[in-house]
Amino acid sequence: MLNFNYSIPTNIFFGKEQVSVLPNEIKKYASKVLIVYGGGSIKRSGLYAKVIELLKGNNIEYWELSGVEPNPRITSVREGVRICKENNIELVLAVGGGSSIDCAKVIAAGYYYEGDSWDIVKDPRKITNVLPLASILTLSATGSEMDAGAVISNLDTNEKLGTGHPLMAPKFSILDPTYTFTVPASQTAAGTADIMSHIFEVYFSRTKEAYLQNRMAEALLKTCIKYGPIAMEEPENYEARANLMWTSSLAINGLLSYGKRTEWSVHAMEHELSAFYDITHGVGLAILTPHWMKYILNEDTLDNFVQYGVNVWGIDEKEDKIAIANKAIEKTREYFNGLGIPSRLSQVGINSEKLEVMANQATRRGVLGNLRPLSSQDVLNIYKLAL
Amino acid sequence: MLNFNYSIPTNIFFGKEQVSVLPNEIKKYASKVLIVYGGGSIKRSGLYAKVIELLKGNNIEYWELSGVEPNPRITSVREGVRICKENNIELVLAVGGGSSIDCAKVIAAGYYYEGDSWDIVKDPRKITNVLPLASILTLSATGSEMDAGAVISNLDTNEKLGTGHPLMAPKFSILDPTYTFTVPASQTAAGTADIMSHIFEVYFSRTKEAYLQNRMAEALLKTCIKYGPIAMEEPENYEARANLMWTSSLAINGLLSYGKRTEWSVHAMEHELSAFYDITHGVGLAILTPHWMKYILNEDTLDNFVQYGVNVWGIDEKEDKIAIANKAIEKTREYFNGLGIPSRLSQVGINSEKLEVMANQATRRGVLGNLRPLSSQDVLNIYKLAL
Repeated sequence: MLNFNYSIPTNIFFGKEQVSVLPNEIKKYASKVLIVYGGGSIKRSGLYAKVIELLKGNNIEYWELSGVEPNPRITSVREGVRICKENNIELVLAVGGGSSIDCAKVIAAGYYYEGDSWDIVKDPRKITNVLPLASILTLSATGSEMDAGAVISNLDTNEKLGTGHPLMAPKFSILDPTYTFTVPASQTAAGTADIMSHIFEVYFSRTKEAYLQNRMAEALLKTCIKYGPIAMEEPENYEARANLMWTSSLAINGLLSYGKRTEWSVHAMEHELSAFYDITHGVGLAILTPHWMKYILNEDTLDNFVQYGVNVWGIDEKEDKIAIANKAIEKTREYFNGLGIPSRLSQVGINSEKLEVMANQATRRGVLGNLRPLSSQDVLNIYKLAL
Repeated sequence: MLNFNYSIPTNIFFGKEQVSVLPNEIKKYASKVLIVYGGGSIKRSGLYAKVIELLKGNNIEYWELSGVEPNPRITSVREGVRICKENNIELVLAVGGGSSIDCAKVIAAGYYYEGDSWDIVKDPRKITNVLPLASILTLSATGSEMDAGAVISNLDTNEKLGTGHPLMAPKFSILDPTYTFTVPASQTAAGTADIMSHIFEVYFSRTKEAYLQNRMAEALLKTCIKYGPIAMEEPENYEARANLMWTSSLAINGLLSYGKRTEWSVHAMEHELSAFYDITHGVGLAILTPHWMKYILNEDTLDNFVQYGVNVWGIDEKEDKIAIANKAIEKTREYFNGLGIPSRLSQVGINSEKLEVMANQATRRGVLGNLRPLSSQDVLNIYKLAL
């Protein structure tokens, strides 16, 4: 197990009606708030009205930034920073999924940065301070509600980059599973795939002696596998929505990765797909994952896949190792297909045209991962296999 | 899943040589420190000298409270509070296992309490403020390094009581698995049993829809089962010591219990054993656990035991449910025996004399647990079965 420093400072208020804590929690930090959200779903669900009622009723001044995109754009960040600076905002409150939260994080950091906010996306070391931020989560997927990272897209440059800073962790997040009752089946599927990919990125690792972390990763994977389809078929199943929501947070808050070398290669490959084609992040991940698994499977990585097949998919450990590995990969593909996600990039409108450009972009910071390090050529090969 | 508020503020510095962070972390809070420790083991291992060197080299003034007992006593707490008040101590640093940390916690709370510190053990609501505290862990067992509770004994009244306050969570804890290399096999066994009991207390629950928490609990149990015997046989096996150490913290920091009704009945029963007979806490837990399991096994609780048997012990799920449950309990008993822990109270010097008094004491705050609630008579029955 590698050395690590554990720090997960975000307080979570989990469950029905927990939004009632909002005014008191905000008042610990602020009396002027910027609310950041996406489209009209929080208005349709009544959550927007509830938040406004709580803020007004407790004399908390608020401004709004709406229309944050599914792959949040630097243009939205810039607008949010402008509002914050002009009005001396003291806390940024995201209401929505990972896109709104990611956007809020970079707004909160951009408030203290004198130049253009894209600078601090490209180089997180330029972040020196961050406004307090908080979130009310409405989609179980990115885990942004409990981590310190954000992903922002720049359509001018076709870049989708991750940034982060310890102070970007929300002060608190409100996780009420009932807010996800209205999430459509297709988004539930993509969110579940996103959560699973976060787990895969840290589960498949060279740090085999992190036994505890590996068993916990399997616990989270089994939870996704069990409840993803249930949440799609019964959108108001509280048990399913609650298990998925809490798994989304724990998958990427550090719990599974502390003490391990991690991969993050599928995410890097996918970021190019959604930067160039604006496809749904979770769908891109689900398409790439089985192809990536197949590509990195070799003598050296075999045991990782055997462990995965036996412990997650219940494949008989007495079977031939290669057979277990291949079955596990096949079960992964079948599972995503069962959620209604296709297996090929061509099915989501991606053709061979930009594969090489994307492969070069994906590896511009160097090879991806370390279980089997992926060069630009490897990434291109995986894209082609996935086509 | 029940509503919950998650807050685990303790920073963990995990791994080899992490003690080097000590001066800088202390300086965030204090320049005057009380060091709390037990016997001579930290002197023999060189850890004491290292800590003193780091404090002296960084101009941090320190006082010492040594000789904290394995079941820490209120008399030690009182002495620590006296030193803190007389010298305006700003941080209490425990160096040792759960006993030293528990003692340090109540000292830190007692500093702000005007009356006798036993009052705040009996009634945690009297705790209003707590000095910052930190720990350097040398024994994987109680999890006190990452939670907000403490257990203190009063030999005058034969009471051993739990207390706690959110501010009692250490600001930071240093977890270097090499510090546990010198822990004798018998204490490694007792510590492992303690960790497992913390997990059992929250795993066996009526909240069956907390699927994620249950799978994580199984992950931690499997880690204990795998590494307990290895750590006993190869005391300097870093992988084993590291996995046990991190499991000890995660077992009781809230991760497994958030969202669930919990039991804590075996702990309540055991506290009486060590209050009256001063036996090793983990040994008492390991003796009681299989008898408690057998006692609460009925039609209503059967599924909990089937899940335990199949997922933790790998018993074939196609077997008869009652058979699975009984096998799982038997495997638990065998496992503890394999660690060198006896199965009966009579083997650790406990006879029938005080069973009734202890049963009454154990239930003085009401029935224990809720999976199968235990009255005073039930506790007496379990003690007798365990005799």
